[in-house]
Amino acid sequence: AKPTTIASAKATFFILTPPKFALSIIIQKNCEKNMKIGLFDSGVGGLTVLKALRKTYPEVDFIYLGDTARVPYGNKSAQTVIRYSLECAEFLLNEGIDLLVVACNTASSYALQVLKGSLPIPVFGVIEPGVKRALENTKGKVGVIGTKATISSCAYKNLLEAKGVEVYQRACPLFVPLVEEGLLEGSIAEAVVEHYLKDLKEKGIDTLILGCTHYPLLKPLIERFMGPQVKVIDSAQAIALEIEPFVKREGSSKLDLYFTDISPSLQSLVELILGEVKEPRLVSLPCKV
Amino acid sequence: AKPTTIASAKATFFILTPPKFALSIIIQKNCEKNMKIGLFDSGVGGLTVLKALRKTYPEVDFIYLGDTARVPYGNKSAQTVIRYSLECAEFLLNEGIDLLVVACNTASSYALQVLKGSLPIPVFGVIEPGVKRALENTKGKVGVIGTKATISSCAYKNLLEAKGVEVYQRACPLFVPLVEEGLLEGSIAEAVVEHYLKDLKEKGIDTLILGCTHYPLLKPLIERFMGPQVKVIDSAQAIALEIEPFVKREGSSKLDLYFTDISPSLQSLVELILGEVKEPRLVSLPCKV
Repeated sequence: AKPTTIASAKATFFILTPPKFALSIIIQKNCEKNMKIGLFDSGVGGLTVLKALRKTYPEVDFIYLGDTARVPYGNKSAQTVIRYSLECAEFLLNEGIDLLVVACNTASSYALQVLKGSLPIPVFGVIEPGVKRALENTKGKVGVIGTKATISSCAYKNLLEAKGVEVYQRACPLFVPLVEEGLLEGSIAEAVVEHYLKDLKEKGIDTLILGCTHYPLLKPLIERFMGPQVKVIDSAQAIALEIEPFVKREGSSKLDLYFTDISPSLQSLVELILGEVKEPRLVSLPCKV
Repeated sequence: AKPTTIASAKATFFILTPPKFALSIIIQKNCEKNMKIGLFDSGVGGLTVLKALRKTYPEVDFIYLGDTARVPYGNKSAQTVIRYSLECAEFLLNEGIDLLVVACNTASSYALQVLKGSLPIPVFGVIEPGVKRALENTKGKVGVIGTKATISSCAYKNLLEAKGVEVYQRACPLFVPLVEEGLLEGSIAEAVVEHYLKDLKEKGIDTLILGCTHYPLLKPLIERFMGPQVKVIDSAQAIALEIEPFVKREGSSKLDLYFTDISPSLQSLVELILGEVKEPRLVSLPCKV
C-alpha cells in the first residue's frame, strides 16, 4: 500500500510500514492557516517538552497525547513500542497536525525511523537534539541515562560514538516512579541517584544526557551529585531549536491534552509538570495489545 | 445479550457486562478430564500465586497470562482496569479453563464483581483470602499496603471494617519497581520500606496484609522492619486453600505461560519468581486502549 495523493480535504493514507504495523489514516487536511504541532508520550513526561515548545512558540496550536493506558513504554519490547507509537501518531494525524514531535525517548529510540518513513509530515524525536547539544559541550566523554528500553536500543550511544566520543550509559528504572511519587529530593531520591550515577561519575564524564522526559524534574539533584564539572543536558530545550525551520508562527495558542486513561492523580500531575491548569480529555485508540 | 446454553462443544457467550465492556466469548468446552486453572495478572507478580497453586495442586494443568504490554495496572483508572481484566479473562476462557484466579490485587479490587457476574465458571480474587487470614490473626488493628489503585478502591478496608476491625492503609508505588529492579535488600530498599511503613508501625497494627503480588519478594525486609509483633500476610498461600472445593485433582501438570509483550528481561524475571525454567509465549489480545 502506498500513500495516495491528496485529492480533496480528506484523503486516506496507507502508512508505509511492515505489514504487521499496517495502518490506514484519514488525514484531516489542515485548511486553516494555524500551525498545529502534535506531541505524544507514553504518559505525562513529554509535558516537559510541551512546556518548552509552548514557551518558544506561544502563538502555535498544540495537541498532546499521553498513552497513560499503557504507560510506561520503557520496560516494553521494541516491537510493542513501535506499534504503540504508530497508533499514537495515527490519532494525532487524524487531528490535522502539521508536524509531529515524539516527546518520549523510548519511542524516539525505537520508532522514529518507522514514523519518519511512514508519515506525510515532518517528524522529530528527542534523541538527536540531545546528542547535538552534548557534542557542542563535551571534550570526549559523555554519559547517557534513560529507561531500560532506551539504553538497550543504543540510540544515543551509536550516534555519539559515530562522532568519536567515548560513551558510558546506564538504565535508571527507578527514576520515573520516583518522579511520579513526587520524591524529587530527600534521602531516598539521593540514595537512588547515587546508586545509578556513582559509576558514571567515576568514569570522568564531562557531559550527562538526561535521556528520558521525566528526568528534568530530578535535574537539581543530579547536578548536585555529579558536581560542577559535569554539564547536564535535557532534550526539551534542544528540540525547540531543532524544529524552528518548520514552524510557522501562526495560530491561536490553542492547547488540547488527550490521554488514553485518566486516573485520579492525573490532573494534579499534569498541573505540576505543565505549570498551568488544563483539563485532560479521555480518548480511545483502536489497536491490538 | 444473555449467555446461551452450550449446545455443542463450542458455544458463544455474551458476557453480562455494561455495554461499554461488551465482549463475546467462544468457549472451547473442556472435553478432557483434565482440570485446567487459568490465572492472569498485569505482569509477572501473579507468578507468586501460580507458584503456590502449583505446589498445592501439582497434577493440575495451569495457564497463566501476564498483560506485560500494559503493565502496571496499579496506576490506572477503575474503568481501564475492568476493561483489561475482561480482555484477559476472555483469552483464558477461550483456552478452556475450568476456574479463574485473578492473580492481581488491582484487578481483584476493581474487576472481581464484574468477572464473577459475567463468566460461566468459578472466579476467585486475591482480596478475600487475604482478609480471611488477617481476621484469623488480628486482635483488632490491621494494616494494608498495595498499589495506588488497590488502596483507592478500599477493597480490603471495606471488608475488614465490616468485621469491626480498625484499618490503616498505605499505597506503596515504589515497591513494584524496586522488586522489578531486583533491589530486595540494601540501603535503598530499607529506606523505601521505612518511608512507607513508618506510620503503620506507629499505629500499633498486629497484622499487615501484603496487598500486591509483587510484595512477597520484599517480605523478609518488611518483617524485619515491622518487628516480631506484626504478622505479615500474603495472599498466595491463602488463595490455594480458598479454591480447594472447586479443584479436581486430575491433569497432566501442564503449564503454559503467555504474555502480551516479551521484553529482553522477561525470561529471567519469570525464572527468578517461578523458580523454574519455562519459555514465555507471546499473545495478542483484541482490544481498544
